[in-house]
Amino acid sequence: HLERYLNAHGHTLGHFPASIYCCTIGGNLATRSAGQMSSKYGKIEDMVVGLEVVTPKGQVIRVRPAPRRATGPDIGQLFIGSEGTLGIITEAALRIWKLPEERVFGAFKFPDVESGVVAMRRIMQSDIRPAVMRFYDELDTALSGSGSEEGGLLDILPLREAASVVKSLVPGFVRTAQRALLSKANLLNLVERFIRDGCLMILIFEGNPELAKLEFEEAKAICTESGAEYLGPAPAQRWFKNRYSVSYKQSKVFHMGAFPDTIELATSWDRVLQLYRHVRSAIAKHALVLAHFSHAYVDGCSIYFTFVAAGMRLEDRLNVHRKVWQAAMEACLKVGATISHHHGVGLVRSEWMEQELPSSFRILEIIKSDLDPQGIMNPHKLGFGRSRGEA
Amino acid sequence: HLERYLNAHGHTLGHFPASIYCCTIGGNLATRSAGQMSSKYGKIEDMVVGLEVVTPKGQVIRVRPAPRRATGPDIGQLFIGSEGTLGIITEAALRIWKLPEERVFGAFKFPDVESGVVAMRRIMQSDIRPAVMRFYDELDTALSGSGSEEGGLLDILPLREAASVVKSLVPGFVRTAQRALLSKANLLNLVERFIRDGCLMILIFEGNPELAKLEFEEAKAICTESGAEYLGPAPAQRWFKNRYSVSYKQSKVFHMGAFPDTIELATSWDRVLQLYRHVRSAIAKHALVLAHFSHAYVDGCSIYFTFVAAGMRLEDRLNVHRKVWQAAMEACLKVGATISHHHGVGLVRSEWMEQELPSSFRILEIIKSDLDPQGIMNPHKLGFGRSRGEA
Repeated sequence: HLERYLNAHGHTLGHFPASIYCCTIGGNLATRSAGQMSSKYGKIEDMVVGLEVVTPKGQVIRVRPAPRRATGPDIGQLFIGSEGTLGIITEAALRIWKLPEERVFGAFKFPDVESGVVAMRRIMQSDIRPAVMRFYDELDTALSGSGSEEGGLLDILPLREAASVVKSLVPGFVRTAQRALLSKANLLNLVERFIRDGCLMILIFEGNPELAKLEFEEAKAICTESGAEYLGPAPAQRWFKNRYSVSYKQSKVFHMGAFPDTIELATSWDRVLQLYRHVRSAIAKHALVLAHFSHAYVDGCSIYFTFVAAGMRLEDRLNVHRKVWQAAMEACLKVGATISHHHGVGLVRSEWMEQELPSSFRILEIIKSDLDPQGIMNPHKLGFGRSRGEA
Repeated sequence: HLERYLNAHGHTLGHFPASIYCCTIGGNLATRSAGQMSSKYGKIEDMVVGLEVVTPKGQVIRVRPAPRRATGPDIGQLFIGSEGTLGIITEAALRIWKLPEERVFGAFKFPDVESGVVAMRRIMQSDIRPAVMRFYDELDTALSGSGSEEGGLLDILPLREAASVVKSLVPGFVRTAQRALLSKANLLNLVERFIRDGCLMILIFEGNPELAKLEFEEAKAICTESGAEYLGPAPAQRWFKNRYSVSYKQSKVFHMGAFPDTIELATSWDRVLQLYRHVRSAIAKHALVLAHFSHAYVDGCSIYFTFVAAGMRLEDRLNVHRKVWQAAMEACLKVGATISHHHGVGLVRSEWMEQELPSSFRILEIIKSDLDPQGIMNPHKLGFGRSRGEA
């Protein structure tokens, strides 16, 4: 594995997607991946300095590595996010970094979502570059629960009781939920307590030891000024230890008869709270919804919604899933945000591509029809091949 | 002017090309511009979050602003560096920054080019982000001379004597030079003294006051460890004050009957010194050549060559100019570097585009022929319309 190889030689790529144990560099590039430490090391498009692509016609397209060039548009970028529709990425040259000498952890509890988002924005606009800055809303704080000593609700409860909690919260389990409301009042109180616990922010700085420490102190001052309580390093250390296991944990929810999915969006700071509220309300009509804010920039950040829904029959479940996506995408576009920060388009978002890229999608079609006239590469992905106006 | 407007509102774009007094944002985007503080604020492609382009067919292509998106390849990037060949950029949304609260200046004298390049690399690989880091070779240090209290050679000498120095150094003034060698030995000694003065590095940090100061201290330690002598802040302050006037000063050289031009290249750290030596030797056969290193990245940096040549007749001068470019481009490509870091292609580099982008230039041609089938947009720029193999 590339990251292990680099680590053994004192370096890191700085790219840590949750899928790190099963993904490939070609896949990271093709899907326009962004890792958990993107605020410090950049996203995959910032890491690539050269690549080679083989097109369906058998043409080999090479972009020679360079730290930067001004020799026309950056052609390599055309394949970052192409999701296998234009060619196969067969080679890439990537920027690497020295392994961090120091890693500083800290966690904070904010009274509400608003104050945490204000702090994130101030941190990013004060020349501070956290490697990780994740901020969880009340329910995400309660359920993922890195904030408490004991872990999250789902961690501390026995599976059967956790199932009751989830069932009591997830629409689609209506009758079960009503039962839970009556018989498991104590569990619901527990949920309440967790939710009143506020919103957790996790911060990690790494690299140059002196700079990492100072950046953390500067960020800490901003958080405190924004009304947050300092929780010490433990919750951030716990997150760091489990950072790749969250996605795999979702199977637990399947065993309960429900299903989880995630939707990540992004927008500028002035619209972040609006995006949060509108998409959350839109999803909440159909599913339990939690959210965290991450991948922050000088100008905005992404919001990562996790939803859990249930249905008695497969058909019901597909129907709910579809309704959630429809509601979330429409709310997102109405706010003027982008429909994907880093998960890509695939099939699930393809019908909204015309609205995401109203007049510029045609540019992709020009290239697609030249490089892959038969349309054999990953058909229907990215929205290719949909007739205009079908969306 | 945008920067003045932003400053008045407490912000900055962070984009400072030497042409700032006469350029436009559309031009910066179309030419893939990089400003003097690119190490901190990024290049123009890092600043743009949305844009609108009108194509020759009258199509309006819009990319809605987003801090980042993963909805297919970044179509906006296709127009960054298009040099007016694909359409006119009519609107852009750019990231802005808070005005820096603090600015820290420092300058160093390195014994030679090698030690300075090592220090630049270490600085960039230690999580330190100078707003400005410029490192001048011996001759550039002597002639631009921000290093000395009195300024550079060309600043302190009366015009007539400066002309003699330049003439004594610039090939093409052979007979004059020989005269100078005999009659102006004292001037040449002065040049010698300046050149023995070593190589100047200028560092500027800005932004968050505590971080800027610490980053400067960290950089200072690296420079000192690399054998540099600390010169205090004055040379960097002097450079900052005159940062936009260098380009305009070149007219002085024209008055002497010579002509200057510049060539900026870029490559990875492992090839930077090789690039410097090979291109310098290649140019030195035809012209006086000075160089500085700037726009540093984790993985490499650019080298900015200034050359001064002369010729009795216009034809001679054009001939020398052509020979210098030919020699520099060939040496650059042989090392595997890129032929332009930020000045772009235009006409002067168009014949080397096939070698710069051996197999990927065709992608640009696909888009060009669809968006501008008549070829009316900025004809011949970027190498469009050259028959294959003509280069």
